[in-house]
Amino acid sequence: MRAFEFLDNVSNINTNTMVLDKGLGYNTVEDSLKLTGNYFNLLKFGWGTSILYEKELIKDKNELYQSYDIKTYTGGTLFELANKNNKIEEFFEELDNLGFNAVEISDGSTNIDETTRYSCIEMAKDAGFYTLSEVGKKNPQKDHEYSIEDRINLINRDMEHNADMVIVEGRESGKNIGIYDEKGNVKEDELQAIAENVKQQKLMWEAPNKSQQIDLILTFGNDVNLGNVNFNEIISLETLRRGLRGDTLGKFD
Amino acid sequence: MRAFEFLDNVSNINTNTMVLDKGLGYNTVEDSLKLTGNYFNLLKFGWGTSILYEKELIKDKNELYQSYDIKTYTGGTLFELANKNNKIEEFFEELDNLGFNAVEISDGSTNIDETTRYSCIEMAKDAGFYTLSEVGKKNPQKDHEYSIEDRINLINRDMEHNADMVIVEGRESGKNIGIYDEKGNVKEDELQAIAENVKQQKLMWEAPNKSQQIDLILTFGNDVNLGNVNFNEIISLETLRRGLRGDTLGKFD
Amino acid sequence: MRAFEFLDNVSNINTNTMVLDKGLGYNTVEDSLKLTGNYFNLLKFGWGTSILYEKELIKDKNELYQSYDIKTYTGGTLFELANKNNKIEEFFEELDNLGFNAVEISDGSTNIDETTRYSCIEMAKDAGFYTLSEVGKKNPQKDHEYSIEDRINLINRDMEHNADMVIVEGRESGKNIGIYDEKGNVKEDELQAIAENVKQQKLMWEAPNKSQQIDLILTFGNDVNLGNVNFNEIISLETLRRGLRGDTLGKFD
Repeated sequence: MRAFEFLDNVSNINTNTMVLDKGLGYNTVEDSLKLTGNYFNLLKFGWGTSILYEKELIKDKNELYQSYDIKTYTGGTLFELANKNNKIEEFFEELDNLGFNAVEISDGSTNIDETTRYSCIEMAKDAGFYTLSEVGKKNPQKDHEYSIEDRINLINRDMEHNADMVIVEGRESGKNIGIYDEKGNVKEDELQAIAENVKQQKLMWEAPNKSQQIDLILTFGNDVNLGNVNFNEIISLETLRRGLRGDTLGKFD
Repeated sequence: MRAFEFLDNVSNINTNTMVLDKGLGYNTVEDSLKLTGNYFNLLKFGWGTSILYEKELIKDKNELYQSYDIKTYTGGTLFELANKNNKIEEFFEELDNLGFNAVEISDGSTNIDETTRYSCIEMAKDAGFYTLSEVGKKNPQKDHEYSIEDRINLINRDMEHNADMVIVEGRESGKNIGIYDEKGNVKEDELQAIAENVKQQKLMWEAPNKSQQIDLILTFGNDVNLGNVNFNEIISLETLRRGLRGDTLGKFD
Repeated sequence: MRAFEFLDNVSNINTNTMVLDKGLGYNTVEDSLKLTGNYFNLLKFGWGTSILYEKELIKDKNELYQSYDIKTYTGGTLFELANKNNKIEEFFEELDNLGFNAVEISDGSTNIDETTRYSCIEMAKDAGFYTLSEVGKKNPQKDHEYSIEDRINLINRDMEHNADMVIVEGRESGKNIGIYDEKGNVKEDELQAIAENVKQQKLMWEAPNKSQQIDLILTFGNDVNLGNVNFNEIISLETLRRGLRGDTLGKFD
């Protein structure tokens, strides 16, 4: 039974929260999940970090996270590396062997033609993976070449090709990328344009910083899908969603 | 017996250090306290995070911290939520059931009239809780409406009403709030004005950032009461207090 | 056997990575090393933090790190404190008793004449310690008094006096110090001047921030020696070195 339950005015929130694991130890995760395990449902082993694990350790961590109904996947960088090396089939096989149950299709660091992109989404879906795709370039200069219309079109086409969730790139820093300016502030006009032209239920905003999380929660409601959440900020984000922190207190009554 | 004891010129410091717990696992805390447990005496479960715990876990963590003579309490936000919902009595009862031995009375996110504020401080004291009060608004615009005189008066009146410790709001960020400007630098004139008109022993400065800790230590001495210290920076702060880091080395000989 | 090994194009990197421990618990370190233990080889108990440990705990941590072939030492601040108090011999004896196998000779916070500096390096070498020296002042104003030529001369003279590794000061913040400007950006001209006049194999750059790590890796190659790496960023740095993150992907093929 939860503590102070008589003070919690907000019922359970139907949302998606994706958390970033940059290389945590097994025991640290196990210890944390006893508190945090019910407050997020997607876990990303950031970019190519999974390569640095012994197979047994990553299998164990996948099992641990999934015991809390948290889906696990590797950052899109690893998919891109596999594609670049013509090893997509080996990649999906290894994901399966290691116990991942989700996958991210992206082109943040490399160029991937549309045919390949959509066939990879299809392949992932057919193989039974929960399939996320990501829109945006990791290099800010390249990312800025996208117009708002480009971004909206790319998102909607991924959705048409049955991606379970489309992520708007925000990186770990949340600065000078996607909808964020150099200081990490949300560009409100771009946010609105995307919001008006895209189905929100399948859209996830990478929002590593607290001010971004607050902005997106106050704009779209406390059930907005948020990603790249720092592992140490899971509880903080949930309190923002529930109006249990000064910044959002009284906003969802 | 301590390592390198022959190099420690500073005897034990009689001070108050309040550390912020944003949702740590039990084992992580237990492991850390073997090193850090003697270097702080107050622990705040930040803002409303306590609501997200199972009762058993928060009881266990309270017991663990208190076994090191560290007083535990929930952030003031939870008190304000209880007050807003007319559930102050249930709130104090729950604090007791869960094993907290301190409480914070604040009005950072809501408006609370003076009569209620002081009667809550009294109620907390009568119930045997170590009672902290906080002065300052979490919303920077509202916080800026306070003149220095206002702040000094509010602090002194809380002390007259027997608060054990009065905290100057600094939030987790330490920016654009209280005595800190937008970059987190200390506003020296406001600091001096408060310093000259308030009893230092019962005053605690929330000082989450290292530069703020250094500034306050060099201004008031190494026994200045500091709060909102990051859990990972407990040892760092203690080295600053003892002149064991470049920034303060040789200042307390 | 490593996961996704068929995607790792970069063979093992012959380099030095120094990680900062600001006061971690034993179990936390033990848990982390199962993943990170092969990706760094030098561990610094920051500045004077070692004084705050019970002897047993620091002995245990030294043993734990060294079981992964990671050399351990205390920050130079402790050496400087010992020198200031005329307790250099007791200091080396205590290092030995506590199981450290490396030592840092520095003058970041105090003034030490050349004779003493070089005799201490010699004493450390003779006693069998892996010996690091550091060039730079912790106070930015004092640090700025060094010309590039000064810095180059100091580095080269430490090398002539047989320091195993010479560190360029970057502090924990990486800002307004050494080769970094106030925003933490690398001053490219100073970097180049040092690079052209100093033996790279024995030179280590303190580079706490990701952007600095990227800059130095792209300038000197993925085997550049880097220090003051945050304990939580060990895996992140290794992915940068191996081209497994967007910022360096495809740069070392």
